[in-house]
Amino acid sequence: MGGNRIVVYKEPGVVAVEDHDMPTLEVPAEVAEAMGMTRKADHAVILRCVSTNICGSDQHMVRGRTTAPPGQTLGHEITGEVVEKGSDVQFVDVGDICSVPFNIACGRCRNCREGQTGVCLNVNPARAGSAYGYVDMGGWEGGQAEYVMVPFADFNLLRFPDREQALEKILDLTMLSDIFPTGYHGAYTAGVTTGSTVYVAGAGPVGLAAAHSAQLLGAAVVIVGDLNADRLTQARSFGCETVDISQDATLEDQIAQVLGTNEVDCAVDAVGFEATGHGAGGGEAPAAVLNSVMGVTRAGGRLGIPGLYVTGDPGAADPDAKEGTLKVRLGLGWAKSHSFTTGQCPVLRYNRNLMMSILYDKARIAEAVNATVIPLDDAPRGYQEFDRGAARKYVLDPHGMVPRAA
Amino acid sequence: MGGNRIVVYKEPGVVAVEDHDMPTLEVPAEVAEAMGMTRKADHAVILRCVSTNICGSDQHMVRGRTTAPPGQTLGHEITGEVVEKGSDVQFVDVGDICSVPFNIACGRCRNCREGQTGVCLNVNPARAGSAYGYVDMGGWEGGQAEYVMVPFADFNLLRFPDREQALEKILDLTMLSDIFPTGYHGAYTAGVTTGSTVYVAGAGPVGLAAAHSAQLLGAAVVIVGDLNADRLTQARSFGCETVDISQDATLEDQIAQVLGTNEVDCAVDAVGFEATGHGAGGGEAPAAVLNSVMGVTRAGGRLGIPGLYVTGDPGAADPDAKEGTLKVRLGLGWAKSHSFTTGQCPVLRYNRNLMMSILYDKARIAEAVNATVIPLDDAPRGYQEFDRGAARKYVLDPHGMVPRAA
Amino acid sequence: MGGNRIVVYKEPGVVAVEDHDMPTLEVPAEVAEAMGMTRKADHAVILRCVSTNICGSDQHMVRGRTTAPPGQTLGHEITGEVVEKGSDVQFVDVGDICSVPFNIACGRCRNCREGQTGVCLNVNPARAGSAYGYVDMGGWEGGQAEYVMVPFADFNLLRFPDREQALEKILDLTMLSDIFPTGYHGAYTAGVTTGSTVYVAGAGPVGLAAAHSAQLLGAAVVIVGDLNADRLTQARSFGCETVDISQDATLEDQIAQVLGTNEVDCAVDAVGFEATGHGAGGGEAPAAVLNSVMGVTRAGGRLGIPGLYVTGDPGAADPDAKEGTLKVRLGLGWAKSHSFTTGQCPVLRYNRNLMMSILYDKARIAEAVNATVIPLDDAPRGYQEFDRGAARKYVLDPHGMVPRAA
Amino acid sequence: MGGNRIVVYKEPGVVAVEDHDMPTLEVPAEVAEAMGMTRKADHAVILRCVSTNICGSDQHMVRGRTTAPPGQTLGHEITGEVVEKGSDVQFVDVGDICSVPFNIACGRCRNCREGQTGVCLNVNPARAGSAYGYVDMGGWEGGQAEYVMVPFADFNLLRFPDREQALEKILDLTMLSDIFPTGYHGAYTAGVTTGSTVYVAGAGPVGLAAAHSAQLLGAAVVIVGDLNADRLTQARSFGCETVDISQDATLEDQIAQVLGTNEVDCAVDAVGFEATGHGAGGGEAPAAVLNSVMGVTRAGGRLGIPGLYVTGDPGAADPDAKEGTLKVRLGLGWAKSHSFTTGQCPVLRYNRNLMMSILYDKARIAEAVNATVIPLDDAPRGYQEFDRGAARKYVLDPHGMVPRAA
Repeated sequence: MGGNRIVVYKEPGVVAVEDHDMPTLEVPAEVAEAMGMTRKADHAVILRCVSTNICGSDQHMVRGRTTAPPGQTLGHEITGEVVEKGSDVQFVDVGDICSVPFNIACGRCRNCREGQTGVCLNVNPARAGSAYGYVDMGGWEGGQAEYVMVPFADFNLLRFPDREQALEKILDLTMLSDIFPTGYHGAYTAGVTTGSTVYVAGAGPVGLAAAHSAQLLGAAVVIVGDLNADRLTQARSFGCETVDISQDATLEDQIAQVLGTNEVDCAVDAVGFEATGHGAGGGEAPAAVLNSVMGVTRAGGRLGIPGLYVTGDPGAADPDAKEGTLKVRLGLGWAKSHSFTTGQCPVLRYNRNLMMSILYDKARIAEAVNATVIPLDDAPRGYQEFDRGAARKYVLDPHGMVPRAA
Repeated sequence: MGGNRIVVYKEPGVVAVEDHDMPTLEVPAEVAEAMGMTRKADHAVILRCVSTNICGSDQHMVRGRTTAPPGQTLGHEITGEVVEKGSDVQFVDVGDICSVPFNIACGRCRNCREGQTGVCLNVNPARAGSAYGYVDMGGWEGGQAEYVMVPFADFNLLRFPDREQALEKILDLTMLSDIFPTGYHGAYTAGVTTGSTVYVAGAGPVGLAAAHSAQLLGAAVVIVGDLNADRLTQARSFGCETVDISQDATLEDQIAQVLGTNEVDCAVDAVGFEATGHGAGGGEAPAAVLNSVMGVTRAGGRLGIPGLYVTGDPGAADPDAKEGTLKVRLGLGWAKSHSFTTGQCPVLRYNRNLMMSILYDKARIAEAVNATVIPLDDAPRGYQEFDRGAARKYVLDPHGMVPRAA
Repeated sequence: MGGNRIVVYKEPGVVAVEDHDMPTLEVPAEVAEAMGMTRKADHAVILRCVSTNICGSDQHMVRGRTTAPPGQTLGHEITGEVVEKGSDVQFVDVGDICSVPFNIACGRCRNCREGQTGVCLNVNPARAGSAYGYVDMGGWEGGQAEYVMVPFADFNLLRFPDREQALEKILDLTMLSDIFPTGYHGAYTAGVTTGSTVYVAGAGPVGLAAAHSAQLLGAAVVIVGDLNADRLTQARSFGCETVDISQDATLEDQIAQVLGTNEVDCAVDAVGFEATGHGAGGGEAPAAVLNSVMGVTRAGGRLGIPGLYVTGDPGAADPDAKEGTLKVRLGLGWAKSHSFTTGQCPVLRYNRNLMMSILYDKARIAEAVNATVIPLDDAPRGYQEFDRGAARKYVLDPHGMVPRAA
Repeated sequence: MGGNRIVVYKEPGVVAVEDHDMPTLEVPAEVAEAMGMTRKADHAVILRCVSTNICGSDQHMVRGRTTAPPGQTLGHEITGEVVEKGSDVQFVDVGDICSVPFNIACGRCRNCREGQTGVCLNVNPARAGSAYGYVDMGGWEGGQAEYVMVPFADFNLLRFPDREQALEKILDLTMLSDIFPTGYHGAYTAGVTTGSTVYVAGAGPVGLAAAHSAQLLGAAVVIVGDLNADRLTQARSFGCETVDISQDATLEDQIAQVLGTNEVDCAVDAVGFEATGHGAGGGEAPAAVLNSVMGVTRAGGRLGIPGLYVTGDPGAADPDAKEGTLKVRLGLGWAKSHSFTTGQCPVLRYNRNLMMSILYDKARIAEAVNATVIPLDDAPRGYQEFDRGAARKYVLDPHGMVPRAA
């Protein structure tokens, strides 16, 4: 059989591109059985992957910080062209180019009806919510591949209105599958609006996407913090202020230097559990970012937390952290009447609006995250460079359809 | 001088009723100086206290779990009659009976304008937000007294429309100063609406107020958890289901017995940092309640956290807890896409609506919390009984104006 | 063929119950063609109708106030048992008893994804939004019948958790298909919350449902206005206050007698365009209700307008009204900073919550609207009595499955 | 006495600048008496007017379209420097430069507490809500003057953080008193967010402010309609698309030419009752704009209506319009499930955020509305040019403090 090249996790630090069978219009057996679905998926499509990005959360698996087994397929940031569709796919057609939200959602359960597609109840036997190519998510095949199956396609797919325009702007549009909405979700749930002062912890792709989203939401000032100098340079390239948390000066003091006050209106934790303590020799400190963010957010403010916190981290330093229990300055947050929004971004809530923002040249997300196109076969190199902190967002190009220059 | 009897903290476990000077139309010197206000308070009134309740958060001071010094005056749940007013009090008059929100607010800062009166920026040199009779809150005199001064009276006071009706319903109306809005805030920010299933952790007065609020908000089922049998009986008296967390059966299992499923839509943590672990021999475990509440709240659900978490707890068992850093199952909350609302209730956001609900006989909060009237001079007994877990809400009656039977 | 008895509009004032062919798993040809769908509907089910109600908006057709042709099938308030399902129906099964929202929705378009199922873009060639058995809505067969086809069944159907319990409470549950959510939508969008004072214009089934919904939302007082004495009696039977608009006393004065003030916090127009002017000899006056409602709503208040206003009313008195242009006191509304919400209720936004409220005995909607069960064959009598102003909600019982006593 | 030069309405079409007495720290006698306030206003300040703008709603009075008597003082768009303050003004000081919201608000009533400062209950005996220098608003002196009294100053005033910076950006900041928040309110209540397509009816200053606000809120495309060619040119100068409603092509068709579809997501009526019908020879048609706006707004969309609709228009063409009753296509709006927000903008809800947006160079409102500075004494010329449709926003400069070049 074969016919589908796909990125696969092999062992800690190693991925490979392998030959797999072509995807079919079927849901994974374990999902079908546990959820009472038919395996035959009249609601599904097969996509030719036009672009498919490497994500920071893929790195958690590749670093061995999860229980992902060797052979786990990877990739949940997918943009593709419909090449085959089931009998009940009514509103997208073969030839349409579409963005695929990373959260797999049925569109038919209580949570999906309420717009909470990040915690769909029907697609993952292990818990609410699922994604392509991820451990403990029901076994949906990854999309860092030539082809991928997308279930409940009418519901999940965001169809681009014009094929030619879509290919022209593909480097921006490819970010709609995950990081752009995820960053936007962080900024939006932090309450960013016209005139806000905003702190974004983390200058990786999600942090940069949150920063750009804060700009689109009207922020007066966006301050990005990280300890990677290249990433801070990248943040400044599109108008953000930056603070370098590898410095000994406190976060409060550095923010005061920018704003004249040591608190911001809104804050986004775009780092999550693989956090590092402040200052030289900070070391891994899983709640450090969240705690520091509370310190600089004004009383009555809100925190958006798109950064991933996990329930199981086999690589953690202490037993509590291994099961996702972290030392949180809850007293401080309570004293400041903070509100917190956690969890996977429900991509469908935002992707259409962000697409419009791209199509009308308001959003320049590819520039903000420094989108960098590489062939599918170069995925292993992309993973390595990204893991070393390259200030880039790697976009895999399985079929040579992506223009190389942003 | 003298003329004002007032409840005072003496030492851990001991309060007394003492003679103090009558309050005047002046703000505390430390507040005036730090905030750039005039001491002379044309905006203030003197109230004759009609009723003034003992609160669970007073107990934190009396138990020695704060830095409150001997001599600290107590009382922030105040209902009173205006007996004197400053020259700039325009819309309340001598003779009006009014409810006083426990949060002191200027009505003129950014936060007050935005309805965040719990974190007013102008009334406490130490941080945002203040209250009467509380440590580290700017030195505003307590209201477990015969008389009390209320600043920014036009803004802060909720005037009852009819004096006679107010006195008749005073046992319900007295709960508007704190616990009824606080409980309501917990239920409201947890997203309780028509048809919700709700879990309220804690059957003290705030928990019971949250439970009754959840009923008013339309909950299908309200389940209250505690380990105090009397308090659970009290919860059942107005239609709640209960779970006994002193039992070894898990909270999930006990909830499943009530609902047929082990998760609720919405949850309220009405306990806070003085929490006890689940089951026999749980012992003090400051994040235990919050963590268990995450376990039983559905993916996508929200948690209201009116229970107090502090930044400093000298009596805590470990150094982290002493500064309010607790072990939180953040990974679990994130996996379930939970949202959290913490902090002091901004009473003014809710008290007028709740007053209407009382005046039209929809809310029966005095019954729900088992309001129990005692003379001001019996305050020490009230503190003691409440500390031992009496399923009662103690209402002090400084002037014999409160009818004794609910 | 045959096999399906169904209610059909014959001529103004006349309906009949006729034999039609059994429904099949196919969408109407005109919808399939215009919307680019397959006729074969793998997403659909056939329901045996357990209960199916006569609605005030059916009366518009039967009175000849629309362009409905003779032969138009009727009925959009449907509760039924699944007897057949398409290959892509995954989450409901044969034997399930379900409520059908009157608005047909695809669950896959932008509006459905945003929860605006009342204006689905894929089910009606004529405009956004559709319904079963209604003129100009795409030709979906009516549900005042023994059997009916429901498309996009996984998305549209609300499954009752327990068959036996569902049949026991069917008289309440049958109201979930339209009037209960529609009334709730009116109250909810009017901003009704704990402690609100509310005016509901109209004591027909939708008005009574709005009034009961206002109670569930926590209203302090609900005042219902109508000129039909029986309907006002019905409103009082579940705790509403009433005003009789056939009296010469102004609405303001009558409200002041109840409340002591002539304005309410929130108002619901549950009448719509077939309104009658105030006082003796009011006569038909299509904007009279809306205008009077503005007069009694407080500055800053909101109006929910579930009452139907149409774009074409062949029976209207003047040319403007024939095309839905009415004389609105816009200056008054503007001076009072009113907000207005119009349109069909998106049933799916509310029906699950309201079901929970029924299942846990919080809502008693069947009593509130005086549900009255009659056989399917008696539909013509039901239409006539309802048209004459009977203070009843008629529930047709095609298969004798409905208990006769509420 | 004397000492204060102020703009006064003399007769239809005529204003003059006259000498009046200096304002004092007193509220108008009619307000004090009716509202039970002291005349002596310890809460008030006297401002030296730094800038004060001519508003389109002033023109309604000057054109004789209201009952304003000769001698009516004018001006409600005020920015000034505190020169005197009452004993209860705590948080602004002599020398502070502040923006004055046009809506006078007490900061102490139910509506103000809820953020509805446009309908304050304590400042106008005639109805909820008030403004400086306006007919039927309680007699507060106008601010197109050298000096003006501002009551409840701590609540009402927005203090600029830095005096020098404020004077430098005064041409932008002067728009915070009315049109910038008013336009923003229109766009915000229309639901404009990231990626929206927006139609703004009217290219006067409020329309242009709404259009710029829509940009700040993230709109993908903003289309402005008017029949004044200069104003359309002005709209294009900051990136808006335009449609010319003096053309015979329908609004739908012109919008389709821009967007490829004849509907927008969100719409703003920035015209109000002095509307003109579409096409050549449209003539005055008070509901024409609102009706056309419904036609081009998508099903499920929202309309912001900051354009003024009045309860009394002595100059109207027909008796209905004289009392503010207009022919509205209510049926159309209902069929499209539209929501409508009307009324005066509550400036305080937005002005701080918009100030931040100006101070950090995100908003360029002075450019958008073509701010044009003239001396106070040239006010009559400003009124005339503005009335003739000049594409300018006139800013009066009573003390020569405003830089002439934007």
